[in-house]
Amino acid sequence: MDKKIAVIGSGSWGTAVALLLARKKNAVMLWSWMQEESDRLNADRENKEFLPGAKFPDNLVCSQDMGACLADKDLVVLASPSHAIRNTAKIMAPFIKENQIVVIISKGLEQGSLFTLSQVVEEEIPQADVAVMSGPSHAEEVAVSMPTTVVVAAKAHKTAAHIQDIFMDEVFRVYTNSDICGVELGGAIKNVIALCAGIVDGLKFGDNAKAALMTRGLAEIARLGEKMGARRETFSGLSGIGDLIVTCTSMHSRNHRAGILIGEGHSLDDTLKEVHMVVEGVKTAAAAHELAKKYEVNMPIIDEAYSVLFEGKDPKEAVLSLMMRKKKNENEEEELW
Amino acid sequence: MDKKIAVIGSGSWGTAVALLLARKKNAVMLWSWMQEESDRLNADRENKEFLPGAKFPDNLVCSQDMGACLADKDLVVLASPSHAIRNTAKIMAPFIKENQIVVIISKGLEQGSLFTLSQVVEEEIPQADVAVMSGPSHAEEVAVSMPTTVVVAAKAHKTAAHIQDIFMDEVFRVYTNSDICGVELGGAIKNVIALCAGIVDGLKFGDNAKAALMTRGLAEIARLGEKMGARRETFSGLSGIGDLIVTCTSMHSRNHRAGILIGEGHSLDDTLKEVHMVVEGVKTAAAAHELAKKYEVNMPIIDEAYSVLFEGKDPKEAVLSLMMRKKKNENEEEELW
Repeated sequence: MDKKIAVIGSGSWGTAVALLLARKKNAVMLWSWMQEESDRLNADRENKEFLPGAKFPDNLVCSQDMGACLADKDLVVLASPSHAIRNTAKIMAPFIKENQIVVIISKGLEQGSLFTLSQVVEEEIPQADVAVMSGPSHAEEVAVSMPTTVVVAAKAHKTAAHIQDIFMDEVFRVYTNSDICGVELGGAIKNVIALCAGIVDGLKFGDNAKAALMTRGLAEIARLGEKMGARRETFSGLSGIGDLIVTCTSMHSRNHRAGILIGEGHSLDDTLKEVHMVVEGVKTAAAAHELAKKYEVNMPIIDEAYSVLFEGKDPKEAVLSLMMRKKKNENEEEELW
Repeated sequence: MDKKIAVIGSGSWGTAVALLLARKKNAVMLWSWMQEESDRLNADRENKEFLPGAKFPDNLVCSQDMGACLADKDLVVLASPSHAIRNTAKIMAPFIKENQIVVIISKGLEQGSLFTLSQVVEEEIPQADVAVMSGPSHAEEVAVSMPTTVVVAAKAHKTAAHIQDIFMDEVFRVYTNSDICGVELGGAIKNVIALCAGIVDGLKFGDNAKAALMTRGLAEIARLGEKMGARRETFSGLSGIGDLIVTCTSMHSRNHRAGILIGEGHSLDDTLKEVHMVVEGVKTAAAAHELAKKYEVNMPIIDEAYSVLFEGKDPKEAVLSLMMRKKKNENEEEELW
């Protein structure tokens, strides 16, 4: 391909995507937050912490120099964790030229502002052409070239098609979509549903209950999304149900594992200590709870998750109160026929 | 509740639903195809073949006398396997009074006619008020009162609400829906996607590939459904994605298990011998392939499944050809923006 690409953020997902793009013969620079980390990656030629064994080819170079990373790139990929997106964007901004395509591959919502990550980046780097990529894509599988399918959303189809061209090959399939907001919301809020699915698993409530929770959880996200300007169909796609499935059913997912511990009766504090890493779903539960209030959307699963996580409600009680809600039509917006 | 209910068909799902309704203090009669089977169930007070250990209460009585079973019932539940639906409906017809509510809980398509099961029953019992129930509901879990959520669709909301009232309790939640065709198609065709998901598992292609297959498989089913008069939203609900999730991820599913064997390299014949029971997905793959042609709908996953099952295509080749299709927009009906 021979494109020049910067990947900003050397966590597991940023590293996996840098590897994918480098394998396709692009010149890839991978930016780390810390000089020490960047030096270590260059010396080890692999990310021993997150993706041990996946060796860096020569055309993948690490750096902590943002100016060097961003100079004259065909594509900038942003992979910082959601809590670090704003600060990272601030550091990037002076080096981003007019209409530079920046594709965000991180997922989450900004605490406080309740912004999606593209809203944060557009505020900090107004000259950028911001796109997002999401879908069922565990880094561990992408790093070893297992077949993966994602969706990329952008304001202009031309931008989405440019990113599709750069990424797509026989093991990484990319669809385009015009709905940036929908693609982002699915990827962010699915972590809360994955946490709840873990709780159902921890309670040993079975496959029927878990599938129902995932389905109704997605319906809530779609209701919120529509109020925020997203398209309902997007939530039936790779960034919606696809990502939800992979996050709720795989043991790769920290959110799912954390939920299992909570369902088994561990406290939130103990769970977070046990899982060690950031559990996005916990923070996102609070943000989604706020968004539901702000947009006046009925989100019973998010409400119960909030009660379990932050108000000490018994997880079993929470599931049973979902079962015993008023009798409903499946599509709550539809008039009874 | 004290309603009088007939359940026609004493396989695992019919038996589980009879148990559920009997636990709620209804007078339930369970009809078997064979006198011998009916006698055995009455003697054993459990279904030792399909649901060993789930004891029948006194208000659950088995019979092979269709006239006795159907006389003066508040609700008739039809649970025969799809290939036996037409013959069973023929036997039922003389005993069904005008506007008797018959809710079909079986899933599948009729070979040859390509009819949904409600179309078959309406043809054979035109005086009945036919409804359907579907959703993520493994019989093994319902039999032991694990939390389960389903959807019931009927022509009149009053009919759907009547069935909802009879079934719903603290472990069995029922939503209503007006879209009979959508609810039926999701339940039928998901078995083909589950078979394909099993193939992906058998090939060890990973969680990303499996989630993508499920998502894009659902998109195909929804495209077909819309052409057949169903509503797209239905496929995002319990009878669509909910049932698909439970069928693709649980080892309870024969379709999923059969797919794993095929993905591991076993022939279709060997696989069917190994799994022992009816694998609905194999027959439905042929029917869905026909429907796609009839309605001129693009269904690449169904086409590849058909090639693997009936034309000897290598499963790995089939998955890779799905990955290498033309670059697409996620919502294929949408104009490029």
